[in-house]
Amino acid sequence: MSKDTPTTHHSTSKSSSNSAHDNSAHSPSLNTVKFALAQSHFLVGDIAGNAEKMRKLAIEARDKGADVIVFPELALLGYPPEDLLLRPSLSGRIKTALSSLSDIEGIVMIVGYPHVDHHGTFNSAAILHNGQQKGFYHKQYLPNYGVFDERRYFDKGRNQVLFDYKGITIGLLICEDLWEESPISELKQQGADVVISLNASPFETGKQNCRKELLAKRSSDEKLPILYVNAVGGQDDLVFDGGSMVVQADGSIVHEASRFLNQMILATYDVHSKKFDSQDKAPLTLSRESEMYQALVVGLRDYVNHSGFSGIIVGLSGGIDSALTLCIAVDALGADKVYAVMMPYEYTSQISLEDAQAQARRLNVSYTVCPIFDAVDGIRATLAPLFNKSKADTTEENIQARARGMVLMALSNKFGHLVITTGNKSEMAVGYATLYGDMAGGFDVLKDVYKTEVYDLANYRNRLEDTPVIPERVITRPPSAELRPDQTDQDSLPDYDILDGILRHYIDEDMSFQDIVDKGFDSEMVVKTIKMVDKSEYKRRQAAIGTKISQKAFGRERRYPLVNKWSIQG
Amino acid sequence: MSKDTPTTHHSTSKSSSNSAHDNSAHSPSLNTVKFALAQSHFLVGDIAGNAEKMRKLAIEARDKGADVIVFPELALLGYPPEDLLLRPSLSGRIKTALSSLSDIEGIVMIVGYPHVDHHGTFNSAAILHNGQQKGFYHKQYLPNYGVFDERRYFDKGRNQVLFDYKGITIGLLICEDLWEESPISELKQQGADVVISLNASPFETGKQNCRKELLAKRSSDEKLPILYVNAVGGQDDLVFDGGSMVVQADGSIVHEASRFLNQMILATYDVHSKKFDSQDKAPLTLSRESEMYQALVVGLRDYVNHSGFSGIIVGLSGGIDSALTLCIAVDALGADKVYAVMMPYEYTSQISLEDAQAQARRLNVSYTVCPIFDAVDGIRATLAPLFNKSKADTTEENIQARARGMVLMALSNKFGHLVITTGNKSEMAVGYATLYGDMAGGFDVLKDVYKTEVYDLANYRNRLEDTPVIPERVITRPPSAELRPDQTDQDSLPDYDILDGILRHYIDEDMSFQDIVDKGFDSEMVVKTIKMVDKSEYKRRQAAIGTKISQKAFGRERRYPLVNKWSIQG
Repeated sequence: MSKDTPTTHHSTSKSSSNSAHDNSAHSPSLNTVKFALAQSHFLVGDIAGNAEKMRKLAIEARDKGADVIVFPELALLGYPPEDLLLRPSLSGRIKTALSSLSDIEGIVMIVGYPHVDHHGTFNSAAILHNGQQKGFYHKQYLPNYGVFDERRYFDKGRNQVLFDYKGITIGLLICEDLWEESPISELKQQGADVVISLNASPFETGKQNCRKELLAKRSSDEKLPILYVNAVGGQDDLVFDGGSMVVQADGSIVHEASRFLNQMILATYDVHSKKFDSQDKAPLTLSRESEMYQALVVGLRDYVNHSGFSGIIVGLSGGIDSALTLCIAVDALGADKVYAVMMPYEYTSQISLEDAQAQARRLNVSYTVCPIFDAVDGIRATLAPLFNKSKADTTEENIQARARGMVLMALSNKFGHLVITTGNKSEMAVGYATLYGDMAGGFDVLKDVYKTEVYDLANYRNRLEDTPVIPERVITRPPSAELRPDQTDQDSLPDYDILDGILRHYIDEDMSFQDIVDKGFDSEMVVKTIKMVDKSEYKRRQAAIGTKISQKAFGRERRYPLVNKWSIQG
Repeated sequence: MSKDTPTTHHSTSKSSSNSAHDNSAHSPSLNTVKFALAQSHFLVGDIAGNAEKMRKLAIEARDKGADVIVFPELALLGYPPEDLLLRPSLSGRIKTALSSLSDIEGIVMIVGYPHVDHHGTFNSAAILHNGQQKGFYHKQYLPNYGVFDERRYFDKGRNQVLFDYKGITIGLLICEDLWEESPISELKQQGADVVISLNASPFETGKQNCRKELLAKRSSDEKLPILYVNAVGGQDDLVFDGGSMVVQADGSIVHEASRFLNQMILATYDVHSKKFDSQDKAPLTLSRESEMYQALVVGLRDYVNHSGFSGIIVGLSGGIDSALTLCIAVDALGADKVYAVMMPYEYTSQISLEDAQAQARRLNVSYTVCPIFDAVDGIRATLAPLFNKSKADTTEENIQARARGMVLMALSNKFGHLVITTGNKSEMAVGYATLYGDMAGGFDVLKDVYKTEVYDLANYRNRLEDTPVIPERVITRPPSAELRPDQTDQDSLPDYDILDGILRHYIDEDMSFQDIVDKGFDSEMVVKTIKMVDKSEYKRRQAAIGTKISQKAFGRERRYPLVNKWSIQG
């Protein structure tokens, strides 16, 4: 056990000579410092449980020779804790949890936690060593865009924090701090040898590449190695995808953790060469489809498990959305926890019945056929005196969808499983879904997956096994809601290639009508699409949550008024 | 028409001698300045329409001799515009709208608008006069708590802005600026004679009294008169309640606009006496029940009208929640736009049938009885093979509630009316409601009204007329969901007096478990209640919006994670 003790420097964000320390004071007797990056899942709200997990990881790391262990941003409370940060007992609970870690000796712990004192509430990192809190750093840049609401809760930190340990000076940053230029630059000026960055960075498709580019730039610009620790696991609509990294001062990545998994990286810094060692074997770089698919699996898995459901129920239609959802569900929870229900009615085709059964069989899940004729007939009989022989319209289509929703919810109530829904992002965008019908359920697996991406993912999943788990016919047949005779989605919607193109520009990229038209889309089709998106906000407001995988997901990331007189052009 | 021209001073927020102006330069020839406070409803997103409304109001004010007209905060875009502020065409639309006002001569217009330039996006007030923009002020304090997300969109202003006009110096503030001490103090130091405050301050019960106390304090502390202009009308879950005021330098209120109504106040400032005239007749002070009731009426009215629905459908149960909701609906929209439906089943009592009919008759609304036996039987027949003679439980109760939801939604789909729901805050808090059942609908009128307040409001509404519109028996009978024989709410819930007491502490006041127990509540009951609240978050997340009337409403004001391992004690 090292007898070194961390010495902390606090300084204002402008570097000043009195806060710079004397490098010659470093102990020359030690040659290496070993860091553990604890990429792990910390549950929102479970302060005592998270502290216990930290204890175990710290002991494991110490036993492996680590001098310092780093946990992700706000790990002690979990991220994002939202209004739990306003609970009056927060401060006391955090103090108790930090104290409970004070008996861990022989390793420096860098713990992400919310710091409450008379100056305010901060998103902070504590430096714990041998029973003492040696210092703390408060995050300086608080993101308040996209999915982030940090200025709702936190005050800005105003000081750099560095500490000396075993002959080197270590600077601390938290997440957004690294996306700005100045904090790391200040740390460099104040003599940092190594920078530690604590993160809770949510997954978006392609995000890990952005992180790599950023880390390479920041480290090579400042000639500083960076230890980047990310959280992992699902929390409501967010998935933290890990991918923690160690970057040399020249910008090269020498350690990278697996994505989506709990993992501890051990990285050794040589004080003389000022370099980290390299890991033996870097993890596989994930393809676009692979990282999307894994994010969807983890998001569903953690929502279901942490909500305490014994299993999930999914309605199969014979179509591609429910087929892909079923695959994800089985990969997330195992076949024994997945209950598939096919609910045929008059307009359900024979191939839908065959394909739904084939999917369930290939994935080896419980499969029940529950025709909804009686339910639909009963509802229509109840309504008949009020409808007075009016012509059938979408009302009758919605009744079918709602009868199915009712069956699934009744099964959920009776047997305690969670109903998951299968609406994709294209449908959620334009409102091609029935409230309280196919939208009934607690988690919408494909909510942030465009229909064209649903096909990509279905093909991706089929390529993983010799026998495709989704029958080829499900992928090649024209999509249909089967709510009236010979219906196809394209009776109501543009071709999905075109629709998704317009939607990406309008939603993910926030482009204006004119800019979308200038991209070459038919102006009438753009008008029609944008109108459908805008007037469906009321449906989305009551929709189940689902895992964010895009750069702009529906939900907390896209906040539109319901009463909204914004016109498309103007 | 005055030939005076406003001269604008910009200065940094620290007062400095070079930004203070020379009071002796004021024209001594004019004795009074007449201000118009345009308390009016401006629609979110409708930039062109809001500009047109401003034009009409400015001309009306000028014709009545006003020198200056003041519009509410962000009136040109409406408040809160949420992510419309991120639309790329915003800046161009705003510029066009401001230009369209440039031909209005002879009156200074103070226009709330979002200002976009290379420095950022600001929540601003423009000073328009005779075709020219004479200056602009950027809000300095951006609320980012409760229902407010202003730091998601806006950058902070850093300068005080004052302008000279007709012999006086006028300082500008926007909403939150006035709740802080320094901005008005800076304006005083920089020579302001009068302060104008533009607001979009949402209603809470008792809020107008808080505003009055604040205005009295700020004006008397700084010896400065204040013109406080508030918005009016409903926008989604918020209602702006007007109550614009003019306050003398001694803190006395000399003008107050009506609450909840479009109204223009004209107030004349005497340059020599440094006083405003007094209005002839102050509006009535509203009782607690009266302001709550009016807020609910306005919130529903504006949501329905601005969403373009021709009418609304409400399910009557014979109970007090739906009875009160019906009253509010009729007061909001008129009896001819309200369609009441009673959907009896096996457990519906005779007095419920009688009372529902009596309510509908007294309020003169369309009333339909639609028994749901066929629907429930059909659904149960569909489920029978899956349920395999299992014992009846809440599943069967939910089926009844969902059959009713299905009938109402089918009527909505067929006839184009909006379904409104009747769940109160106590029920929404503890999850005493069925998703896709009684929760099915677009607007929940009583969402922020505790059950005990429902009784207060029912009694209040009954007192307004000689013949009570809600039959006395509806108020006095024990509340029941009537989903099984002889059921009452208190089979599942504590007495409402106790329940609401705990809920107020836990939700509205964010108190900890221990603090609630210390207030004298039974600890087991507190545990039970808090657990019910926490585990019902998933229902609330899919609930309809409803008008905020409390200091903490469900929805954007209370943001809790779904997966949440926070324990009650600890």
